[in-house]
Amino acid sequence: MASESAARPVLEELDRAECLRLIAPGGIGRVAYDDGEGPTVVPVNYVVDGESVIFRTSESARLNRSLLALVPSGQVRAAFEIDRFDPVTREGWSVLLRGGAHALSDEERESAIRVEPWAPGERGAWFCLAATEISGRRLHRS
Amino acid sequence: MASESAARPVLEELDRAECLRLIAPGGIGRVAYDDGEGPTVVPVNYVVDGESVIFRTSESARLNRSLLALVPSGQVRAAFEIDRFDPVTREGWSVLLRGGAHALSDEERESAIRVEPWAPGERGAWFCLAATEISGRRLHRS
Repeated sequence: MASESAARPVLEELDRAECLRLIAPGGIGRVAYDDGEGPTVVPVNYVVDGESVIFRTSESARLNRSLLALVPSGQVRAAFEIDRFDPVTREGWSVLLRGGAHALSDEERESAIRVEPWAPGERGAWFCLAATEISGRRLHRS
Repeated sequence: MASESAARPVLEELDRAECLRLIAPGGIGRVAYDDGEGPTVVPVNYVVDGESVIFRTSESARLNRSLLALVPSGQVRAAFEIDRFDPVTREGWSVLLRGGAHALSDEERESAIRVEPWAPGERGAWFCLAATEISGRRLHRS
């Protein structure tokens, strides 16, 4: 282990296809947005749908209240980050999607891929972040 | 395992002391800020110093360029998120610090706790996020 983390670290940019492949299994990601008091970050369960991520939150959650407050414009700038790092080998990767997030309409929800939240309570608010920019990096040791 | 993840999930708010205890070991966190094109998120190595987190990045990295562009005001609103979730048990926790981030002066750097970055290359830019708000949540199953 010591030799692994002592090996020379290499940071490489990932292309769009590799980013999408890495995030495809879903799980936990982190949505970042401005709630009017600056940037904030909330971990959420997500699924990937094409080049978008779909995530759910509680209708009473702060995340949702902030996003719903922007409903007249229908869309809010957001970022979505997913990563996986191994504290032993100190290797891993991160993927970042940036774009506009909007609440799914009932119609959109019908056809949306199902997200299964780990957290309790109703998670009646569904959001979609459509990526206009996808980037990622992998850290490994040679 | 199936029975564990099928158990009733409970989401509890963590107090400030518990949040600070959880993030004390350092490791990887995620800093969120607005780079002028909306919110963005970058994973970084961090250490905890009191109620602040200190993290390093490359002087040429986009994160740093964005933050340094704000140097006249000296401070930029940022959020710092740390979490740990177990995909098998679906339990875990997340902690969020919000406040102002600023680049450390040479003098501040002298006395700062050392951050050891996992990524390669020079990481000559040190930042400190002084938390004005610390919150956290733990998801467990009963």
